[in-house]
Amino acid sequence: MRTAIYPGSFDPVTYGHIDIIKRSAKMVDKLIIGVLSNSSKTPLFSVEERVKMLKEVTKDIPNVEVTSFAGLLIDFADACNAKIIVRGLRAVTDFEYELQWAQANRAVRPHLDTLFLVTNVEYSYLSSSAVRELARYHGDVSLFVPPYISQMLDEKLDSKENENEQN
Amino acid sequence: MRTAIYPGSFDPVTYGHIDIIKRSAKMVDKLIIGVLSNSSKTPLFSVEERVKMLKEVTKDIPNVEVTSFAGLLIDFADACNAKIIVRGLRAVTDFEYELQWAQANRAVRPHLDTLFLVTNVEYSYLSSSAVRELARYHGDVSLFVPPYISQMLDEKLDSKENENEQN
Amino acid sequence: MRTAIYPGSFDPVTYGHIDIIKRSAKMVDKLIIGVLSNSSKTPLFSVEERVKMLKEVTKDIPNVEVTSFAGLLIDFADACNAKIIVRGLRAVTDFEYELQWAQANRAVRPHLDTLFLVTNVEYSYLSSSAVRELARYHGDVSLFVPPYISQMLDEKLDSKENENEQN
Amino acid sequence: MRTAIYPGSFDPVTYGHIDIIKRSAKMVDKLIIGVLSNSSKTPLFSVEERVKMLKEVTKDIPNVEVTSFAGLLIDFADACNAKIIVRGLRAVTDFEYELQWAQANRAVRPHLDTLFLVTNVEYSYLSSSAVRELARYHGDVSLFVPPYISQMLDEKLDSKENENEQN
Amino acid sequence: MRTAIYPGSFDPVTYGHIDIIKRSAKMVDKLIIGVLSNSSKTPLFSVEERVKMLKEVTKDIPNVEVTSFAGLLIDFADACNAKIIVRGLRAVTDFEYELQWAQANRAVRPHLDTLFLVTNVEYSYLSSSAVRELARYHGDVSLFVPPYISQMLDEKLDSKENENEQN
Amino acid sequence: MRTAIYPGSFDPVTYGHIDIIKRSAKMVDKLIIGVLSNSSKTPLFSVEERVKMLKEVTKDIPNVEVTSFAGLLIDFADACNAKIIVRGLRAVTDFEYELQWAQANRAVRPHLDTLFLVTNVEYSYLSSSAVRELARYHGDVSLFVPPYISQMLDEKLDSKENENEQN
Repeated sequence: MRTAIYPGSFDPVTYGHIDIIKRSAKMVDKLIIGVLSNSSKTPLFSVEERVKMLKEVTKDIPNVEVTSFAGLLIDFADACNAKIIVRGLRAVTDFEYELQWAQANRAVRPHLDTLFLVTNVEYSYLSSSAVRELARYHGDVSLFVPPYISQMLDEKLDSKENENEQN
Repeated sequence: MRTAIYPGSFDPVTYGHIDIIKRSAKMVDKLIIGVLSNSSKTPLFSVEERVKMLKEVTKDIPNVEVTSFAGLLIDFADACNAKIIVRGLRAVTDFEYELQWAQANRAVRPHLDTLFLVTNVEYSYLSSSAVRELARYHGDVSLFVPPYISQMLDEKLDSKENENEQN
Repeated sequence: MRTAIYPGSFDPVTYGHIDIIKRSAKMVDKLIIGVLSNSSKTPLFSVEERVKMLKEVTKDIPNVEVTSFAGLLIDFADACNAKIIVRGLRAVTDFEYELQWAQANRAVRPHLDTLFLVTNVEYSYLSSSAVRELARYHGDVSLFVPPYISQMLDEKLDSKENENEQN
Repeated sequence: MRTAIYPGSFDPVTYGHIDIIKRSAKMVDKLIIGVLSNSSKTPLFSVEERVKMLKEVTKDIPNVEVTSFAGLLIDFADACNAKIIVRGLRAVTDFEYELQWAQANRAVRPHLDTLFLVTNVEYSYLSSSAVRELARYHGDVSLFVPPYISQMLDEKLDSKENENEQN
Repeated sequence: MRTAIYPGSFDPVTYGHIDIIKRSAKMVDKLIIGVLSNSSKTPLFSVEERVKMLKEVTKDIPNVEVTSFAGLLIDFADACNAKIIVRGLRAVTDFEYELQWAQANRAVRPHLDTLFLVTNVEYSYLSSSAVRELARYHGDVSLFVPPYISQMLDEKLDSKENENEQN
Repeated sequence: MRTAIYPGSFDPVTYGHIDIIKRSAKMVDKLIIGVLSNSSKTPLFSVEERVKMLKEVTKDIPNVEVTSFAGLLIDFADACNAKIIVRGLRAVTDFEYELQWAQANRAVRPHLDTLFLVTNVEYSYLSSSAVRELARYHGDVSLFVPPYISQMLDEKLDSKENENEQN
């Protein structure tokens, strides 16, 4: 059984991520989406919220699971019994960073390989940080995320604005 | 009437920026320089100081205006009634970042286009952050910024040092 | 009056070129498309055919002219009384090549500037050589070129096959 | 059953190619290596020789087949009933070229995806053209190709030198 | 006498750095390693610890000295009476950043040149930040740093964990 | 004694090459310029002419020698008893190509290292092929090559035009 992991921050998940998930899920038997809980960054959505959102938008793909992880990617892969890491590539600067990690990971885990898919051209300019910035200023994000995520963004940013007003 | 905006941090404006301003001002009827007021970064100069410095160094170019903006670039363009964004390109890493924003902006505002000019070769290694670092250690910045900006840098850094000494 | 030139091989013109033509024609008063007659390459279509095809696909844009040229781009710009060269950018490798020529051209003609537009994302993978290769093997090029160009490709490749059979 | 194709010129096959073959063969049920018979280039080895060499160096990998093809890659994929194209990535310039073809191929065959693997770091500087140049001047290629290929190179280049002497 | 400086953060020194040190030390009469004391970043190891570690791992190379510096690289070069800056290049994104600094430094110090060496291929994916992340989660760093540095990392991270537990 | 080689086609030598020669000659005891006699390309100037031109433009640099070579660069380095190859870097695409050769050369000759210098910013867009194209159409090359080379270009291109007229 071929198991792959697809790690990321997904803050929030975009149509670009969903495209990679659908395409890589066809190539393997099981795809485990790993939401990174990175203590050094302050995400917009909590890990629990991001896992919940990913479960919602991937509920119709049978061989996909969603979970969170902290620490090293290679340890997460071991825990999942996965031999394949899936990564989406958008641009050249992405590529260099990804290439270095793929090579470092193989040096310490020779059986662990990284499979790259090129992001669909219509999502190639899409990033979670651009979506967050657009949403923060009430820009239209419907081209970039599913309606459910768009609604979650509105709620999150409304509650943040209320907090700021009360302080 | 063709109106373009040239957005940036300009902290401070350099000869590289002035080169792009002069060249793009020739291509359009009106060029509005937009100084970004970015709440998440602490600039060396305040937005008001940066607007003042830009007005001074562009005072001889008749079709240039200087103002500040906050929020999304596409909303600033709408407010200026501008259909063209001007950007300078120095290097490949610049290019990828700019390309992604140009494509994202066109996705949400199809009538809004981004016009790129290549930074003059003699300014290709110039950045505001390098100028700030050079000035902080009393390096000579006269190759990189006009005398007026050089003087503003000296004053700003002197007042900062005095502040630090008093604390 | 702002006149710009848009030089290229256009062997054949693609939707990517047409996108750049439409967008840059809005930014200037007159846009002169210059079809390069390059003696060192053997194009699929003759210069005359390429000029004719460009005239056909741009006939509805009032401020566009199509002509051919040989020799240096800077001499062609002088002959057109143009101060702006328009170029489309698709990718990083494009960018480096274009950047070097833009800088070399400005060194010898300081008044001549190059204006870059980023190719629309849906055409970012499109090239004339890919279109020729696809057409050569009877692949479907309708996503990449207008119907008129598609028909010209079929006729050209049929006549070439007939030639080969007779030899 | 997941079938993938791994297309290339393989003139000759190197340790870099063999690394990609071994790793991708683990990810799919069947891997078909397609040796491109490109009429516009003059290879060192004929298509038949290249197929033979690939069969020899992959004989111990059970789910690998070797064949040749001409024409479009997408037609070869269809003929193999393959939904996955495998490509190795060494460097940034590779990446841009591959990215454009992956996107063009998906535009005309939406069900056909390209899976990228990063070349093992110790083979990242390896190319068939460097191997040919090294062998031509009697340099040592044993770090770059298996002994069987090294011997084939010696024989081929000896016979070429003899031909030249007789002319 | 040719004196060169090799500046960096070295937090901690890796086999990649040591490779550059050994190779550049052969090209010059004296190589002075400058450990940057950067007030705006919080390093894992103090400047004094980093100098000590570098002295230990370079003790067998006779023409190498290790010291620390703060402020501008060009002032450090002047203080060392050095006319050459040594830098290692791993990747394209490295290269652009380094190229811009090399050109800015030559603009203000025309006699000061930057000599680049390409990182050995087996260390091309190595960075101090990857080593720190690996060590933080008790990953094996023995492929990336000498045993002495590996031990220092363990001690440092143990003492940090104890601190956190006590708070 | 530190001997370095600086290989290239130099068809013709430009101010960019001369800049690299002057700067690298200061870093080594002897610099041997190697003019590549590449049988697969048709240069504008013969190897003998290119050696003669290089000798003329470097006659005032005492530790520089000029010679020609054919075959592998690593064999030429051995013949010169050189342990250093000097290369100039202009752009990212240059860099990748050079990086791969530097790594391949070190794999087969571990004692042979490549030292990179970044081309002076004012020559960063300069290439011999651009000079040849400019000269072919009687463009002004005085910004790009010394007067002696400019004169050689005129003579060479005049004699070529005469040849063509007689045929």
